[in-house]
Amino acid sequence: MSSTKHSIPAGPEAPSVPNPAVGPLLEGITAPGDLDGLDGPELVQLCGEIRHFLLESVQQTGGHLGSNLGVVELSVALHKVFDFRRDRLVLDVSHQCYPHKILTGRRDGFANLRKTGGMCGFTHPDESDYDLFHFGHAGTSIATGLGLAMGTAGDTPRPHVVSLIGDASLASGVAFEALSAAGASGERMIVVLNDNEWSISRSVGALATYLTRLRSNRTLQRAQQEIQGLVQSIPLIGKKMDQLGEVLRHALVPGHVFEELGVSYVGPIKGHDVEDLVETLERVSQLDGVTLLHVLTEKGKGHPTAPTHPERHHAAKPPVYRVPSAEEAEAAKKPSGQTFTQAFAAALEDAAERDLRVHAITAGMPSGTGLVGYAERFPSRFHDTGIAEQHAVAMAGGMAKAGLRPVAAIYSTFLQRGYDQVFQEVALQGLPVLFCMDRAGLVGSDGPTHNGVFDLAYLRCLPGMVLGSPRDATDMRRMIDMYLRGDGPVGLRYPRGNCPAEERIPAGERRSMQPGKAEVLREQEGDHAVIWALGAITETALEAAAQLAVRGIRVAVVDARFAKPLDHELLLEHAKRYPLIVTIEEHQRAGGFGSAVLETLAREPGAKARVRCLAIPDRYVVHMSSRDEQLASVGLATSDLVRAVEQGLVGVKV
Amino acid sequence: MSSTKHSIPAGPEAPSVPNPAVGPLLEGITAPGDLDGLDGPELVQLCGEIRHFLLESVQQTGGHLGSNLGVVELSVALHKVFDFRRDRLVLDVSHQCYPHKILTGRRDGFANLRKTGGMCGFTHPDESDYDLFHFGHAGTSIATGLGLAMGTAGDTPRPHVVSLIGDASLASGVAFEALSAAGASGERMIVVLNDNEWSISRSVGALATYLTRLRSNRTLQRAQQEIQGLVQSIPLIGKKMDQLGEVLRHALVPGHVFEELGVSYVGPIKGHDVEDLVETLERVSQLDGVTLLHVLTEKGKGHPTAPTHPERHHAAKPPVYRVPSAEEAEAAKKPSGQTFTQAFAAALEDAAERDLRVHAITAGMPSGTGLVGYAERFPSRFHDTGIAEQHAVAMAGGMAKAGLRPVAAIYSTFLQRGYDQVFQEVALQGLPVLFCMDRAGLVGSDGPTHNGVFDLAYLRCLPGMVLGSPRDATDMRRMIDMYLRGDGPVGLRYPRGNCPAEERIPAGERRSMQPGKAEVLREQEGDHAVIWALGAITETALEAAAQLAVRGIRVAVVDARFAKPLDHELLLEHAKRYPLIVTIEEHQRAGGFGSAVLETLAREPGAKARVRCLAIPDRYVVHMSSRDEQLASVGLATSDLVRAVEQGLVGVKV
Repeated sequence: MSSTKHSIPAGPEAPSVPNPAVGPLLEGITAPGDLDGLDGPELVQLCGEIRHFLLESVQQTGGHLGSNLGVVELSVALHKVFDFRRDRLVLDVSHQCYPHKILTGRRDGFANLRKTGGMCGFTHPDESDYDLFHFGHAGTSIATGLGLAMGTAGDTPRPHVVSLIGDASLASGVAFEALSAAGASGERMIVVLNDNEWSISRSVGALATYLTRLRSNRTLQRAQQEIQGLVQSIPLIGKKMDQLGEVLRHALVPGHVFEELGVSYVGPIKGHDVEDLVETLERVSQLDGVTLLHVLTEKGKGHPTAPTHPERHHAAKPPVYRVPSAEEAEAAKKPSGQTFTQAFAAALEDAAERDLRVHAITAGMPSGTGLVGYAERFPSRFHDTGIAEQHAVAMAGGMAKAGLRPVAAIYSTFLQRGYDQVFQEVALQGLPVLFCMDRAGLVGSDGPTHNGVFDLAYLRCLPGMVLGSPRDATDMRRMIDMYLRGDGPVGLRYPRGNCPAEERIPAGERRSMQPGKAEVLREQEGDHAVIWALGAITETALEAAAQLAVRGIRVAVVDARFAKPLDHELLLEHAKRYPLIVTIEEHQRAGGFGSAVLETLAREPGAKARVRCLAIPDRYVVHMSSRDEQLASVGLATSDLVRAVEQGLVGVKV
Repeated sequence: MSSTKHSIPAGPEAPSVPNPAVGPLLEGITAPGDLDGLDGPELVQLCGEIRHFLLESVQQTGGHLGSNLGVVELSVALHKVFDFRRDRLVLDVSHQCYPHKILTGRRDGFANLRKTGGMCGFTHPDESDYDLFHFGHAGTSIATGLGLAMGTAGDTPRPHVVSLIGDASLASGVAFEALSAAGASGERMIVVLNDNEWSISRSVGALATYLTRLRSNRTLQRAQQEIQGLVQSIPLIGKKMDQLGEVLRHALVPGHVFEELGVSYVGPIKGHDVEDLVETLERVSQLDGVTLLHVLTEKGKGHPTAPTHPERHHAAKPPVYRVPSAEEAEAAKKPSGQTFTQAFAAALEDAAERDLRVHAITAGMPSGTGLVGYAERFPSRFHDTGIAEQHAVAMAGGMAKAGLRPVAAIYSTFLQRGYDQVFQEVALQGLPVLFCMDRAGLVGSDGPTHNGVFDLAYLRCLPGMVLGSPRDATDMRRMIDMYLRGDGPVGLRYPRGNCPAEERIPAGERRSMQPGKAEVLREQEGDHAVIWALGAITETALEAAAQLAVRGIRVAVVDARFAKPLDHELLLEHAKRYPLIVTIEEHQRAGGFGSAVLETLAREPGAKARVRCLAIPDRYVVHMSSRDEQLASVGLATSDLVRAVEQGLVGVKV
């Protein structure tokens, strides 16, 4: 079996990082089968070598170091016990896949981790047959694992299915649905709960507290011994499993919640003793039904500064549950300007200062959404639901109904998880909730699981939604104020990356901020064409217009500011005045801003302009080293816009 | 306080039903405050009168009888104990709102229940200040209730928040997320679990089994006595509550799952003893924190044929968890033809007969989606996840990855709940899952919570999706076969209602069924315009074309069959050949089929045709007696299409 399908050329602007020295045992591992010959002490040594490799490599390339350091022993033990050419492994979120990738023949890929053309930061079926799915959203490994178990139940021999899921992911509704279904299904599968002790804070729900109780239970030691004693007496199959289940159930008091859901609970066991993990997994693999193995791991395990690791001791900084990205590093490289995230945070804090109705909500992403400072300043008006977007959105609806002005800061891609609640609990009720959709557009090294490129399509169809997109820090502030003045639902989308360092129009000279009012940034007499841009990408439009002006083509530029409602009046005026309208947006072509323009003009018999729409074509945009590369790859660079205007004007009388 | 805001004129085609005789106590109830003067025996009598009223009234008008008969005592007790002018009541799904509506001054509205211009079948803020939300999707009452509790925590006196949720709804992921959040929140709220003993089947997950254990526990009797004894000793507030919690926790063994989530569990108690309910609610209302009161109710309680009620004894018929609608009755009235649901079921059963990879999945709607017969024939390839669309979709992804061909039959509106899983677990992976979206379009008497009018927008943006819409039973069959031949994700949308009784083109003479291939149903030389329709509404297009032909306007008609991919070649040919293209679809205007046509033509410099799009305008379409009335109300009747073609041709050279 070829375990590596993916070619890994160095990206043009991403020189590969020299691979660090590789330990002698790791050197010999090119496929999981190479683990067969290793005994216990050698496995321990191998884990050390993998950890060393990760530390050396990922600290140079960037990536998810801490979560991967936490699952080194677990990954080795899983590949030692199971044969995932036949058995099935599903990694939830899958950012903890690095040891798995090292063990499945992809060690060399780390030189170009998350770079253009390089290895993906998540599992990806294009890279290896050992990667079943390309995942980046949390909580679905149990459901997909159950589907795999159902689909392979007739195979001989019956494959094992192992779903690895983190404690934060387990709190998401879909994980609960799947656990309840699995427990009742009669299928055989193993759920490995990777319980990272750092991930818990007071704010993330009662399930977290429950896991803390399980973890800290003083029966831990005793339970471990009991498991070993009990499991050694396991007959291979059959009804006696039920008896064992009963025994386990009573012996291991704390697992009641899982047991009541029909899931056999085993644990908690320590996650950094590879020999013990191998032994336990071998025994658990002989159980029938659904078993949840609770493994305690330590994020950042083995990091040289671990005891004083900042993430560990800065209690003020809320934990990051989802994938932390390299945006801070990237932002630092940029010449100037704050990120849109920072602009949002600053504006929201000011608003909260003035308006006591403001409550901020995050779904497990306080750091990524910029709310850490807010949480410190307004702790009683800050709510972290954990990875529970559905609840976050519905709760916001309730809060709005009670007179508050909730601000739900949720990445564009993760708001998909709460779509039905945006519809029913907010938009249908016409309630004032502000959705701040960070990472709208392309996101660089995280790739298609994290690109926020569908929000206009899935939200624009909902009656009553106002959808804005601030092009700079001033408009961010003004749009938040507009939401507070109004009384209905508003969504704001803004990209990863920096606000323009210099704003084009002073705050005091701008057109008033109202839903459906665009702003003209560049207008001249006798223009040939007009570019309608949405939000941050207006900068690209202005650059293109400047380049076109040099070639004698006079192009006006509008920031639509709102994808919904559109500035109908101005658009119609432009459709009569200009022979060509070119729209540009950082969103899929289907159903986005350009479509809104087309829909509006299709209802206007007087609209004469030819319309051309630049947007993301109908494909998933893979990870690249930078957003700029991704934008160029989908035809959204300045040069693409210049060309679109020129081509659009061919044959047009001006 | 005016409790009735909504005027209730009789709809033109919906003569109001004479109100049944009203009992003497019920006669005196015009607002919940009127309950104040009633003692225990009078409350019992009132419940009997309400039940009598419901039986008489709803059996004539249609509506959700069984679920409302089950909550008569509970509704009376809630309004007796709480004052919902100040306290907050959230009804999950809210189809069990009839007794609540009777008690809040809307008894007369039952004459026009669910009719055009008549009273809504769900709670609706436009009708009464006692209705906080307009809900129809399940599982969100705890999250919204928690939001209300947070938003009113500072009010003096602090309002009680009561969320009423059914056992089937509790199994949805959002309910679990919210319960976990509520348990950790420190807020005060009461969750009343309306546990209907009919709603449980083996297939709906381990939570259901758990509730069954709670329910059947022989400690029930004893527990009830203990609660009464214990709760009588409750001090009003303060730390002693914690002690009580401890006592309750240990006295009432079965509630562990809730207790572990930080929720005080009380129950189970019988749901048809109104005096006992009042007493228990009064005591529970004095508890701090989050309390779950487990109430056992009986669906259809008091129905004259209850002991032999068909729903009770036909074990073969899976229970309906979501709102059953009146479509059977409506279908029976139509002249001929099977429903699209029936056509789907027949085609799927045939496919499953031939292809062992076929597995059918429903999310708690086996009856509504037409899968009852399938479930009987192929029980091992039928999976009911309960109200857990997220899990249903993700599990389907896993099944497809294992080589199966899962068919997820989920109403268009409920698939919104699994949107993120359609994206990540299916479309991004390119896996062959078929989504059969019944009730796509307008649904008549259920109204906007159930209209399926967003699916094209939220799915069309996902790369790799194929989106078809069968116009009749033959195309339904061919589209399912097409999915089985292919290897990627497919969504099919089809409306509530009947297939055409007579099919326009014999099966053998149709164009081959491939993604992106339209079918021309009417074409003539020298045509003036072409109508591009999608799926079932092609019938409207053909009727319009016939009417236009009488007036000398020659119009071709195309069934696009697919909203994605479009038949690019044929569309471009038509855009060159006809001066006018009119699109028609049963979907919101924003991002739908018409937008797909506009997007495609905007990329074609040679496209000369004027394009006009008929679709649902940007508003929520309220419930009406029939789909036809709704379609006319949004300009999608045949006459509207005729007018659109005529107006579109004004000023066009033909």
